Amino acid sequence: MSSEEAIPDFWSVVPAGGSGTRLWPLSRRSAPKFLQDLTGSGRSLLQDTAARLTPLSQDRLVVVTGILHADAVREQLPELAEDRLLVEPSPRDSMPAIALAAATIERIDPDAVLGSFAADHVIGQPETFRRCVREAVQVARAGALVTLGIQPSYPSTGFGYIEVGGPWRVDGAPSAHRVDTFVEKPDRATAERYLAGGRHRWNAGIFVVRAAVLLEMLGTWHPDLVEGARLIAAEPRRIQDVWPSMTKIAIDHAVAEPAAAAGKVAVIPGDFPWDDVGDFASLATLLEESGDHPGLRILGPRDQVISQDSSGVVAAHAGRTVVTLGVPDVVVIDTVDALLVTTRERVQDVKGIVETLQRIGREDLT
Amino acid sequence: MSSEEAIPDFWSVVPAGGSGTRLWPLSRRSAPKFLQDLTGSGRSLLQDTAARLTPLSQDRLVVVTGILHADAVREQLPELAEDRLLVEPSPRDSMPAIALAAATIERIDPDAVLGSFAADHVIGQPETFRRCVREAVQVARAGALVTLGIQPSYPSTGFGYIEVGGPWRVDGAPSAHRVDTFVEKPDRATAERYLAGGRHRWNAGIFVVRAAVLLEMLGTWHPDLVEGARLIAAEPRRIQDVWPSMTKIAIDHAVAEPAAAAGKVAVIPGDFPWDDVGDFASLATLLEESGDHPGLRILGPRDQVISQDSSGVVAAHAGRTVVTLGVPDVVVIDTVDALLVTTRERVQDVKGIVETLQRIGREDLT
Repeated sequence: MSSEEAIPDFWSVVPAGGSGTRLWPLSRRSAPKFLQDLTGSGRSLLQDTAARLTPLSQDRLVVVTGILHADAVREQLPELAEDRLLVEPSPRDSMPAIALAAATIERIDPDAVLGSFAADHVIGQPETFRRCVREAVQVARAGALVTLGIQPSYPSTGFGYIEVGGPWRVDGAPSAHRVDTFVEKPDRATAERYLAGGRHRWNAGIFVVRAAVLLEMLGTWHPDLVEGARLIAAEPRRIQDVWPSMTKIAIDHAVAEPAAAAGKVAVIPGDFPWDDVGDFASLATLLEESGDHPGLRILGPRDQVISQDSSGVVAAHAGRTVVTLGVPDVVVIDTVDALLVTTRERVQDVKGIVETLQRIGREDLT
Repeated sequence: MSSEEAIPDFWSVVPAGGSGTRLWPLSRRSAPKFLQDLTGSGRSLLQDTAARLTPLSQDRLVVVTGILHADAVREQLPELAEDRLLVEPSPRDSMPAIALAAATIERIDPDAVLGSFAADHVIGQPETFRRCVREAVQVARAGALVTLGIQPSYPSTGFGYIEVGGPWRVDGAPSAHRVDTFVEKPDRATAERYLAGGRHRWNAGIFVVRAAVLLEMLGTWHPDLVEGARLIAAEPRRIQDVWPSMTKIAIDHAVAEPAAAAGKVAVIPGDFPWDDVGDFASLATLLEESGDHPGLRILGPRDQVISQDSSGVVAAHAGRTVVTLGVPDVVVIDTVDALLVTTRERVQDVKGIVETLQRIGREDLT
């Protein structure tokens, strides 16, 4: 048996949402980061995500996206069957989306195990990633909610953490452990303590669980969401009536945190490179240094960038020549209708620029 | 008699050349800085120059420009008669251009006094400027070569200097002095000494002189240039044969320096604001600070610039929104086909970028 054989009862769920405002002007409401090739791979993050999962779930892939992006998703994933694309009439955070996917999958295969993976994260070493998912599936079949915990590489204050407990004994999942708690984004000192202590891992928002188990757990705390999801799964055209009344909540708060408190959540340590591409500094680490321009990372056509004594990130996405001269740690994002010039230090504040644009009536640029 | 009455024997000569490579990508070979509105006045530097001179010389204006820019000059100065536009087949520096203008003017008015003024300098307080020119004309009528010496406001290493000698006594020119020597661009320490000493002024390349005197002086050192200029003035169509053999030399070296050594050059102190707009730092000083963005100077449409915690110069010339976030002393020049991001400190090196573009086969951008 090849280690890369598909898992017959495993389904991939990809919630494709989030606008990535800290990646403006690359990422827009109309073209969020999951639709974009941010790494120069030649494929969008969504396409990379789907390709990474195909060896595990083949065509058992369900994508949940907003009405604004449904056509773009169809275009980027032409093999996706129409009934595997779930279109949200409005954004209601991750739980309703995943619940709807679970109810839809449960009708096709009542014993299915699903794994939910964001459409806009970057994952290296896909074989290692899939080996972790295989272990997670073993644990999920036995009734647990399973997450993958990413080995922290620095004391990030931008991610939530998973506090890892004792071993979780299931055949075929030697590295499974109990999740003691999920913790919110910590302050710097706490993050440093987590990193030093070795008991905390980054929460990448990856969950593997039997569809029926997820709905059962959810039913304990949010029965309305289960009822709504099953109604829509049975009669998809009812989504217009039912969806707006569904509770807007993230899966972490709706299920993962209370389930962890009840001792029902396991974690598989994920030691593959993972990045949520949250801002341009994060994006920079994913790009190779330009051979001609040491210290500079280039996104988009390299022959359009001329650089002297500069470091940072340059994206030449407007077909124009971009010259940087003597600017260290700069971020230059050149698009057809908007140009951003900032520094690596200020990338978190790009979100505020998007808010400013909305406030001054330039939503057209967001 | 109004102080702004025209001077009947006075002619203005405007050599309109120079590419302004340190203002790339605003200034290009095909659109050099004299053709551009760099100050937001609504007129190009050439148009501003012509307008500044009209009260003195009315329609006695001769413009000398390269073949590449003749049509643009005609368009910008529609009142300029065709025989007042002298078109150089190739660039041969300032002396042949001014000699040709002098020979052309001399044929119309043998007693004419001409003043030569670069097309791409910015001059404030035009009445003060014209008062200085009037004094210079008084001295020139008596046979001298007269320059205007600009009061230095800082120890510039980018300009040549004039060393001012004793008074030059001529009726109607109380502030005239002798020029002891012209000095090349000094190093920093020398420039500081000049500024402290009070005997040196900036050489703005402005010369006022009788056409016949200029040609006579020039004949002492470069008789070929006088002969060539007079040949072309008499038979303009001969320019194609004669021009290429004329010595390529600046008026400073050809006439001003040797004439100063011979005690024939006078200077009128010019205490009007003057700037050669040599680079973006120089340009920045000419622009008002943006009310909304303290420390930031904006060239072009202001409503296309959004800035937080940034200072420097932004030119939004591509119709796109330009956002700067947390970048001090930045220079962002956004044009339709090229974008420059640099710092105030490195503006002198923009010239090297243009050379790089030419070397790598991107002359289309220069």
